[in-house]
Amino acid sequence: MPLWNIYHPPSTFVDDASKQALARDILPFYTAIGLPAFYVVVNFIPMPAGTMYIGGERNDESRARPFVRFALDHIAVHTPDDDAQYRRVRERFEEIVKPHVADKGYSWEFHVAETERRLWGIDGFAPPPWGSEGEKLWAEKNEAVPWEDKK
Amino acid sequence: MPLWNIYHPPSTFVDDASKQALARDILPFYTAIGLPAFYVVVNFIPMPAGTMYIGGERNDESRARPFVRFALDHIAVHTPDDDAQYRRVRERFEEIVKPHVADKGYSWEFHVAETERRLWGIDGFAPPPWGSEGEKLWAEKNEAVPWEDKK
Amino acid sequence: MPLWNIYHPPSTFVDDASKQALARDILPFYTAIGLPAFYVVVNFIPMPAGTMYIGGERNDESRARPFVRFALDHIAVHTPDDDAQYRRVRERFEEIVKPHVADKGYSWEFHVAETERRLWGIDGFAPPPWGSEGEKLWAEKNEAVPWEDKK
Repeated sequence: MPLWNIYHPPSTFVDDASKQALARDILPFYTAIGLPAFYVVVNFIPMPAGTMYIGGERNDESRARPFVRFALDHIAVHTPDDDAQYRRVRERFEEIVKPHVADKGYSWEFHVAETERRLWGIDGFAPPPWGSEGEKLWAEKNEAVPWEDKK
Repeated sequence: MPLWNIYHPPSTFVDDASKQALARDILPFYTAIGLPAFYVVVNFIPMPAGTMYIGGERNDESRARPFVRFALDHIAVHTPDDDAQYRRVRERFEEIVKPHVADKGYSWEFHVAETERRLWGIDGFAPPPWGSEGEKLWAEKNEAVPWEDKK
Repeated sequence: MPLWNIYHPPSTFVDDASKQALARDILPFYTAIGLPAFYVVVNFIPMPAGTMYIGGERNDESRARPFVRFALDHIAVHTPDDDAQYRRVRERFEEIVKPHVADKGYSWEFHVAETERRLWGIDGFAPPPWGSEGEKLWAEKNEAVPWEDKK
């Protein structure tokens, strides 16, 4: 459900270990509120020199710091329309990515698009409601399995 | 108008024929409600081993089934805010992709973002309203041509 | 803040100069309303033959004109819900890209997704409000620096 597309120059996230480390560190962001770990999909999309521009300038060695752009889609759970709650999500995001960007001398930007939960499916199933028994089952199995909503 | 971005491991949609077969099978999803076929744009974005993670795990041969992630944008027509209608869109989607994912032993996930129709353009034109004479003309020509809205 | 993802066949935007020219020409679209130039991020994502389909057809030399797909995210400022304002944004977009697509014999499509400003961050900062002193500071420095909102 969260889909993370990470557009990055090849000088960042060079080896698979650095990619997987980030992909794993973000799991608690979602599993802490009960979402199954397998909901979290992360795509690292390398942007070779000359294909990515910030303010019209190339994202290459001419920059003081390489720039990484995170584009997130949130589907299962939306942030309530409340300044404090949005701030909390933002701060949590920054806390998680810090070791993977700031601490490595990278510059970064992120934004989140929230999309309609009812236009979402995994392996042919409509995912169980947030906080439901079905969701607990999915989290436990860590895969999409038949579930029934007991209202 | 629908834009389909399909993030897939190289072990899936290996040849062009398998890509084009999917791109063609989804057309009726849209043309059945009068939309021109050329609105349907499908991007297959290959994700080499080590660039895509599900629940922190690599999307490679270590998984039981390769995982394909569909990210759709719908612009021309939005689903009415009604559970039954959303369910119908979801079921139609699953029906269409089944031969291309489930039947091939893949795992898959999709979600749809619906965006503002008035922030959309093709070849310099604002596309004609849904169900209009202009849209019928575009569907018939299967390209963007001058049209006039006769209210 | 605006994130431009440009999906294009390799026969278009062949050299870096043509990419950078577009990336620079779009800056005034945003800086004219006070936004810092470094907010503007442009990704050119090449789509080799066989990976991109329009109406089920390959986006290759079999087409009369190569097709370029612009997918934009707007975060900092949303267009007011007003037909005339949406038209103005559309016309401004077309004016800017014309030399880079129409005048080169390409076909093109764009759409804009508008996402929640409060789910957005740069270098660990929440960007300053539109039109604020903080934003003027960021525009002047052309980078994310500590700022304080003086209400």
